[in-house]
Amino acid sequence: MDQRLSTLAYMLPDGIDAALIISNENRRYFTDFVSSLGYLLVTRKESYLLVDSRYEEAAKNQAKNCKVVPFKRLRDALCDIINSETLKNILLEGSAFTLNNASETDQLISSTGASLIKNRQLDELINKMRIIKTADEIEKMRKAQRITEDALSETLKLIKEGVSERELALELEFRMRRAGADGVSFDLIVLSGETTSMPHGVPSNHKVSFGDFVLFDIGATVDGYHSDMTRTYAYGKADASMKRVYDTVLSAQLRGIEAVKSGVTCAEVDMAARNFIDQAGFQGYFGHSTGHGVGLEIHEAPSVSPGNNFVLQSGMVVTVEPGIYLAGKFGVRIEDMVVVTQDGCINLAALPKELIVL
Amino acid sequence: MDQRLSTLAYMLPDGIDAALIISNENRRYFTDFVSSLGYLLVTRKESYLLVDSRYEEAAKNQAKNCKVVPFKRLRDALCDIINSETLKNILLEGSAFTLNNASETDQLISSTGASLIKNRQLDELINKMRIIKTADEIEKMRKAQRITEDALSETLKLIKEGVSERELALELEFRMRRAGADGVSFDLIVLSGETTSMPHGVPSNHKVSFGDFVLFDIGATVDGYHSDMTRTYAYGKADASMKRVYDTVLSAQLRGIEAVKSGVTCAEVDMAARNFIDQAGFQGYFGHSTGHGVGLEIHEAPSVSPGNNFVLQSGMVVTVEPGIYLAGKFGVRIEDMVVVTQDGCINLAALPKELIVL
Repeated sequence: MDQRLSTLAYMLPDGIDAALIISNENRRYFTDFVSSLGYLLVTRKESYLLVDSRYEEAAKNQAKNCKVVPFKRLRDALCDIINSETLKNILLEGSAFTLNNASETDQLISSTGASLIKNRQLDELINKMRIIKTADEIEKMRKAQRITEDALSETLKLIKEGVSERELALELEFRMRRAGADGVSFDLIVLSGETTSMPHGVPSNHKVSFGDFVLFDIGATVDGYHSDMTRTYAYGKADASMKRVYDTVLSAQLRGIEAVKSGVTCAEVDMAARNFIDQAGFQGYFGHSTGHGVGLEIHEAPSVSPGNNFVLQSGMVVTVEPGIYLAGKFGVRIEDMVVVTQDGCINLAALPKELIVL
Repeated sequence: MDQRLSTLAYMLPDGIDAALIISNENRRYFTDFVSSLGYLLVTRKESYLLVDSRYEEAAKNQAKNCKVVPFKRLRDALCDIINSETLKNILLEGSAFTLNNASETDQLISSTGASLIKNRQLDELINKMRIIKTADEIEKMRKAQRITEDALSETLKLIKEGVSERELALELEFRMRRAGADGVSFDLIVLSGETTSMPHGVPSNHKVSFGDFVLFDIGATVDGYHSDMTRTYAYGKADASMKRVYDTVLSAQLRGIEAVKSGVTCAEVDMAARNFIDQAGFQGYFGHSTGHGVGLEIHEAPSVSPGNNFVLQSGMVVTVEPGIYLAGKFGVRIEDMVVVTQDGCINLAALPKELIVL
């Protein structure tokens, strides 16, 4: 990550003197320093991390490739740098500044005559950098994935008649965090029976019953990097219609993964999975995208969705997660997270995908 | 909460035809419906909750006092309402719209000729409503507080030589959630020994030792409402300097609580606690505000801080949490959450505050 800040400074658009970054993820991405508040001002000469007194010591020890500037009054710290470097046009992180943040910042720097530029350019620049993962980033995601899989394997042993979705979700999270995860990638999804047909269902006190599908859409974070995986299991037994849907989703997922490689579009990957489901007679029952990028955020570019002609490149990490959802009956989704390579992809998930009846 | 939306519509500033709300907390506050995405458009005639298809059924069942409008394309749904009600000026929630959200929305409605008004007026209006809590809201916070106290009482039994701050934090969270909390109010703070001197410390693998202070700054959420409490315990023994600091903080906290009542300013409450600490010889060792409002967010208005002449009124809920922090040695903070009344306040916390040596 040593080059990240200099790359960003080099890529600043013509006429722009600096970029102002405030999102936790991007501050961390560029400086390796974790904090809940701070201003990263990147000029063509230098990068400054402005932090309040409570982060001063930690930032000086941990923040990389930038000058740590502790401040009592943000106004003074910002204006000093703007004046000393005679910055005129400062690009804001439009995805992170609220309208109120932006107008406050306008007021803070009003004495300098500098202008804040409010558009998407900075987000687009940073996304172009973040979308290609380094070996270190991939290693963190692999570690998060291992923790997730181990926790799931342990939690499967708790499935029995009458255990609730919420209890299973809580046990899973507890195991992940005890194993060293920073936290969960998102509110863990554990669903059973009919509710598995809701792609965005929330774990409830609904209890697992004999003959149910039990769906886990789960992930952990390690050093800020996310993992994402879905597995669907049958509890007790699986009837013929459950097996048919499961096998269709699994075959579609394998087609999707086979389609992933550098040079292929997101739409082509989506279509590989989607066409299989449609042709198996389930057209209209797979209502979401096939996948999405993952990294410091759980949903990043690119979107692996119909019509997205964005071309995959080596080093991108995306999920492949088709599903079939039969309202009032059940749903099945299977999801792995893969790293795009020249020849195909590396699957970061290792748990088996054949239908398991618990 | 039946009157909330009509109150907001009535209070819209002159020249404003509607308000557009997108924050999860405010959508929930006005409609009682919990979701991670949605647009609440409040006009002088009607309130519309725009949701995508996955929330349609749940919103129709649960959202109160508004018309649920499911949309396929947000553009169409927004423009239809703007055109049919001939809305001209729409006030945005400036604390929730990012620059990118606002410019997207500008584009979505460009065909209608309506203008988006980007300032703080809507936030200020809503804050005025949210700052006074109803009996139902207070009851939720009381329940969150009970869950927090029960979990803490259980977790104290786990304190022994060698247990880590992280383990204690995790055990606490697990107990709160098992007891029915939606989640934690914030990343729980459990610190021991020297690190108790950092008001914003983060639990680490640092282990509890004989003679340490162990500080818990913790809270749970119930139905979206937060609780917030701090207790500091001695493990094994407390020497004279620990006792002196502890007793000073406790007396200061009691002075702060005694000062709370309708008609008193935030600065007066802050001063009641702060003066006691200063006069006991610890001037300069209490570096943060005495408290803050709590509700659907963990930090809300009002700020109980020096110089804030905002006047407390019955029904506001604030924390009172002075501390003394001796760098390199230890820190003590004691915090309760209280409801302001005509004659004083109701303390929502029940756990004892005298120094306990575990």
